[in-house]
Amino acid sequence: MEGISKKIYLVLEEPTEEDSRSSQMRILDGLKEQGLDAKMTVKVMRKLYPLCDEAQWKITVSLAWNGDCWTVVNLEKGDTSAEHYGIAVDLGSTTVVARLMDCAAGKCICEESCYNHQIAYGTDILTRIFHCKDNEKELEAMRKATVDSITECLNALEKKAGIAPESCISMVVSGNTTMIHFLLGMDAFCVFYTPYAVRADRPGFCRGKDLGFPVSGYVYCYPSKSNYLGGDIISGMVATEIYKKDEVSVFFDIGTNGELVIGNKEFLLCGAGAAGPALEGGVVRTGMRATEGAVDEVKLENGRFRIHVLGETEAKGICGSGIIDLLAELFLEGWVDIRGRLMPEKSPLIQEKEGSLAVEYAPGLYFFQKDIDEFIRTKAAAHTMVEIMLQESGLGMEEIGKFYVAGAFGKHVSKESAIAIGMYPDMERERIVNAGNSSLEGAEKLLLDKKVLDDIDKILDNMVYIQFGAVDGFLNMMIAAQALPHTDFQRFPSVMKELEKRNKEGKGVISGT
Amino acid sequence: MEGISKKIYLVLEEPTEEDSRSSQMRILDGLKEQGLDAKMTVKVMRKLYPLCDEAQWKITVSLAWNGDCWTVVNLEKGDTSAEHYGIAVDLGSTTVVARLMDCAAGKCICEESCYNHQIAYGTDILTRIFHCKDNEKELEAMRKATVDSITECLNALEKKAGIAPESCISMVVSGNTTMIHFLLGMDAFCVFYTPYAVRADRPGFCRGKDLGFPVSGYVYCYPSKSNYLGGDIISGMVATEIYKKDEVSVFFDIGTNGELVIGNKEFLLCGAGAAGPALEGGVVRTGMRATEGAVDEVKLENGRFRIHVLGETEAKGICGSGIIDLLAELFLEGWVDIRGRLMPEKSPLIQEKEGSLAVEYAPGLYFFQKDIDEFIRTKAAAHTMVEIMLQESGLGMEEIGKFYVAGAFGKHVSKESAIAIGMYPDMERERIVNAGNSSLEGAEKLLLDKKVLDDIDKILDNMVYIQFGAVDGFLNMMIAAQALPHTDFQRFPSVMKELEKRNKEGKGVISGT
Repeated sequence: MEGISKKIYLVLEEPTEEDSRSSQMRILDGLKEQGLDAKMTVKVMRKLYPLCDEAQWKITVSLAWNGDCWTVVNLEKGDTSAEHYGIAVDLGSTTVVARLMDCAAGKCICEESCYNHQIAYGTDILTRIFHCKDNEKELEAMRKATVDSITECLNALEKKAGIAPESCISMVVSGNTTMIHFLLGMDAFCVFYTPYAVRADRPGFCRGKDLGFPVSGYVYCYPSKSNYLGGDIISGMVATEIYKKDEVSVFFDIGTNGELVIGNKEFLLCGAGAAGPALEGGVVRTGMRATEGAVDEVKLENGRFRIHVLGETEAKGICGSGIIDLLAELFLEGWVDIRGRLMPEKSPLIQEKEGSLAVEYAPGLYFFQKDIDEFIRTKAAAHTMVEIMLQESGLGMEEIGKFYVAGAFGKHVSKESAIAIGMYPDMERERIVNAGNSSLEGAEKLLLDKKVLDDIDKILDNMVYIQFGAVDGFLNMMIAAQALPHTDFQRFPSVMKELEKRNKEGKGVISGT
Repeated sequence: MEGISKKIYLVLEEPTEEDSRSSQMRILDGLKEQGLDAKMTVKVMRKLYPLCDEAQWKITVSLAWNGDCWTVVNLEKGDTSAEHYGIAVDLGSTTVVARLMDCAAGKCICEESCYNHQIAYGTDILTRIFHCKDNEKELEAMRKATVDSITECLNALEKKAGIAPESCISMVVSGNTTMIHFLLGMDAFCVFYTPYAVRADRPGFCRGKDLGFPVSGYVYCYPSKSNYLGGDIISGMVATEIYKKDEVSVFFDIGTNGELVIGNKEFLLCGAGAAGPALEGGVVRTGMRATEGAVDEVKLENGRFRIHVLGETEAKGICGSGIIDLLAELFLEGWVDIRGRLMPEKSPLIQEKEGSLAVEYAPGLYFFQKDIDEFIRTKAAAHTMVEIMLQESGLGMEEIGKFYVAGAFGKHVSKESAIAIGMYPDMERERIVNAGNSSLEGAEKLLLDKKVLDDIDKILDNMVYIQFGAVDGFLNMMIAAQALPHTDFQRFPSVMKELEKRNKEGKGVISGT
């Protein structure tokens, strides 16, 4: 497999008066013998002497693909072809994750992550966008914060693995449209403002130096399809390979925004919508990120909550996966009805609190009726997105091969809970696949396989964007989905079974509304 | 004719929700409609907003060819396609000349020159090479001096024409192998030291920024064929187009070194040799550069010297063209014999001076016997180069269509004088063509015509380098040429006629040896 960088060990003839080719041509001819047409940077030209002589013409050249041709970007003495490194980055709006890749072995050496430094300018993307809108100085600060975030990861990787970013050839960055705009230093107001025509969506290969990174070669930024369908989704396609398959798959990336793709090797229907920050614990009173002290798992057993707290410490709040568990348990145990209304008669843990009902899911921590309502709207939006996409593609859920859930959601959320509340469709559990950090996986994959570049073109060509709001019946579908698990129970047979199993009152809840 | 840069005025549709392509793709699509596949730099991506909106999508894009593809390197509001500039540079070891080109009109706007700042490290190239050999710091100083020299010209051009180098897209530099090594920051000892394998001879297109120039696009450095056959000669080929012609031409560039090419569209035989600094007045006691106070023209009339002094001032010394005139007149008037020996009986101006004979060519200025001897060796080397090349190509002088003389030599030296001393062959005068600054002309030509790049490849392929020293009979030819005009008078019939015409003693000189 040919990646977007190479290290090639060359044993060349020393120059003689009979063969007095230049050092440059000697190397480029050596590469040509291996079928590689390449150019050479000025930096490398400066390095030719005395390196080649000192190495007695046994040298290793680093090559980087720039989208059009191979470029010699570094020279080393002797055979260092095994020391071939690259970097894959998932530039998330909250978290930035970078992997140091051993490109010779095709393996990840280690991974590091950090909070996106942009957070200093606002926790949500819109605040950040407004912060630097039409303000060159603040835009530059935002760009720098973005570069600094990745650099923090690179430094951590260097500390951990002892491999400096200068030793890496290529870097692949995948992020949503706003993140890439900020990385390149472009105003991102366009992403959220009509007519939603962004600045640049095909940055391609940029020199490391031009973006502020010390890699010797190029930084490839995944292109975006549209304002809401960013490089992270394209990268997710590459990771899951749904664009290569015969069977139709669903790709679901849900965070502050939800992005959805349904398709196979022939078509890719895409949509995106504001899922609301509820999923990240944003509007929930005691909601918090999945850090130390967050309740991330919830069970109701014999009328009592059994919770898991991250960091095995005292509970401080609840994160996304905890919320979904909590809501599922409340519903399955009949503590809320299908509209999500808390039923105080079911447990003394459900009490009047600050003028509304709330359930005490951990000592002194309450989940309010308002929190539940907000969350149900969010999960209804998510469900409706899937429903619309299926309707548009003329397919039924039974025709879906795999249901990929990307990101932290896919990793941490319990499938059973997500199905119980009607957020995921009720399908065979093994068909629901945690796609992990597919944005990062896609970045990694491209780093190791240059052919992916052609795939990306194909993906962009095949993608058709569906405006959810423009679809007939959108609002009705949305309203119908605002029940647990859905107004149409038939869609969730396994949830019905679980309800029956858990308690007879389960049925009561359903029939009671 | 398509140059290596372009300015294209685009009138684009403003984005709508129906057509929400990115600014980047809107521009690249606009170019594609004109048959141009292009990429875009990060710098331009940053400039897209608010420029495009402010210009209501009526914009002019600057495109630069980088050897592989077109790159959008600048954006301007409105139609600025007529303001399309580029720079052609002749990077000489003594003088740097730059032309500001109007690429839209295909014309030179103005020209500026300056001394090469490298002179601070030595007047001759070898001193400069030794100065920074294996010394990174001094090499960087040499590189900077080179860049500063060109920059001085660019600043002068800006002052004269009011057009900043930042407004120029592409730059073409032509110079000998050492000059290009220094421009790129490479140790040039290799140029003069066995096995004469240089560092890099195909630098191609480098970003302006990488070399230290503010042009928005790329700087192309003419490639060299070998250590002694530099980019200035390749550029000279492009200027004279001898590689395109049916008839065989001679291209002769003589300075400290002499370079010679004989050929046509089918073959190009090349040679180079140390012509000696005599030609530039280097070893002559009162020799000087062609600056104010230099005797540049000499006539002998009625036993007296009639001289022309540059700057119409008092004579301080004598420059190359003056020396050749002087030697020709001395010979034609019979003041020296065919071996160049001064004949004190011919004129009281020939006197014993500091233990040797010398002729007083201007009040208080003497040309010594040693100066003459040195010069005759130089002209013999030049003649022998031509003779060998003809012998190698199996051609006689009568088969030569044009005899191009490049550089200051071609411009300032009297054809008659150069023939009289046997430096040029005795051929029809109109076939001897002053090629002017063909190095600069070739740079200019490439700037305006991208097809020249293919020609350069062809030239490099066709060039065959002849080692003069390795040719049979080299020494004998060299010795035979050390006479005025040559041991074999028959080769110089017009000189013989002139001798006869000038005075009967002329014959005496010849028969007397």
